[in-house]
Amino acid sequence: MEKRNLLLTIAYDGRAYHGWQIQENALSVQEVFQGALRQVIGDDFDVKGCSRTDSGVHANQYCISLKTGHRIPCERLVAALNRFLPMDMAVKGCRSVSLDFHARYSCKGKEYQYLIWNDPVRNPFLDGRAFHYWYPLDTDMLNQAAQAFVGKHDFTSFCTLDHRERDNMERMVKCCSVSREGSLVTFRVEADGFLYNMVRIMVGTLLRIAQGKIPEDGIPAILEAKDRSKAGPTARACGLYLNRVFYEEDL
Amino acid sequence: MEKRNLLLTIAYDGRAYHGWQIQENALSVQEVFQGALRQVIGDDFDVKGCSRTDSGVHANQYCISLKTGHRIPCERLVAALNRFLPMDMAVKGCRSVSLDFHARYSCKGKEYQYLIWNDPVRNPFLDGRAFHYWYPLDTDMLNQAAQAFVGKHDFTSFCTLDHRERDNMERMVKCCSVSREGSLVTFRVEADGFLYNMVRIMVGTLLRIAQGKIPEDGIPAILEAKDRSKAGPTARACGLYLNRVFYEEDL
Repeated sequence: MEKRNLLLTIAYDGRAYHGWQIQENALSVQEVFQGALRQVIGDDFDVKGCSRTDSGVHANQYCISLKTGHRIPCERLVAALNRFLPMDMAVKGCRSVSLDFHARYSCKGKEYQYLIWNDPVRNPFLDGRAFHYWYPLDTDMLNQAAQAFVGKHDFTSFCTLDHRERDNMERMVKCCSVSREGSLVTFRVEADGFLYNMVRIMVGTLLRIAQGKIPEDGIPAILEAKDRSKAGPTARACGLYLNRVFYEEDL
Repeated sequence: MEKRNLLLTIAYDGRAYHGWQIQENALSVQEVFQGALRQVIGDDFDVKGCSRTDSGVHANQYCISLKTGHRIPCERLVAALNRFLPMDMAVKGCRSVSLDFHARYSCKGKEYQYLIWNDPVRNPFLDGRAFHYWYPLDTDMLNQAAQAFVGKHDFTSFCTLDHRERDNMERMVKCCSVSREGSLVTFRVEADGFLYNMVRIMVGTLLRIAQGKIPEDGIPAILEAKDRSKAGPTARACGLYLNRVFYEEDL
């Protein structure tokens, strides 16, 4: 049977999952997704995710390429998968793409957001979905400080040590913002790619700036140092959302 | 020890709870709240909630009056309770009120909201927190139709039969709106009081109007009929939130 290649977009609340990738002894998004897929089209599939994503991280838009010989129409596949998936996961769309498309390698950029509930009292509706930070944050100042991330930089200082890739630590950050709506503070960043834990370390560094432990204009020097120990700690996974994934045709 | 009377406001995600009131064989908000209270101030308390609330209903602001001889300052009580409460519940504030204040009987009005996720695809972040309705809703039309609720009316048609109070079925609806933000549709209603299931039956009736099964201008006739069977079904509890509770001094 001739293969087709499909691009599926899903959303999931990551609280129950140890990231995308299938692994032993821990439930993953991929395992649950493939389980639903098996119910609908049997075993004839090869699935590629757009990125790993850590345990507890959420996705408003996660992209999957799916090679299959099965002829189910896109619309019916979406409806059927949503019936077999748990309530914390949903397929949002599906379309046919060329056979050489790969959810990860064809990706031209991504946007992440990080949510901080900035209030003395926790929000019972955001448990596991936003990082709770008690002390008032000056979001205008943080937004100003975060502009130093924009541009092409070596992000070695913003990458967890064990996961350094040898070759290229440069990434192009297109835009970056810190904004507030009531008690909810959102950090949003778009780049052509992200190193391991890069967004969470960016957020941890901004919180250090908020605490006065790193100067407001300290980010350029941290980038320059290419030294993980100069940046702030890795912020908790619960606040992180993969928001958008960009491919050639979208740009 | 001389008693004090405190007004506490809490918020909770109602998914795990069978409403406010303590009952056998089911977990209630009151039981969990009193459990935390016992850890902090012992057994010297008498707690009154501002309303019952159904199983699975949420609260952005629920009010409790608490009589106690314990002298713990308000701020410390809030912090201590939040340490003992589960993550789906939080105390937002506490203040001293006169001894004759009663969370339920002193209440002058309430505001509820009902959330509808109006999209072909469910939202993994709103499971149990919004009613998922697939077919497109014309919120401008529904907002127009809902204006017929405003004013002083006999709401017998919008009260579950078993729970009719004999005397007074009149309630004064101050304002009422249907609005949209992306796929999220919000019905909001403020009144001097609500009959049992009143908001959920209002929403069920608006959905019947959306389906063309009740005319757009049909609400006055349903009110007039004083007949539960003329209104729409009771919408699911999961979309309902107690938003605000009004007392004399706030008005």
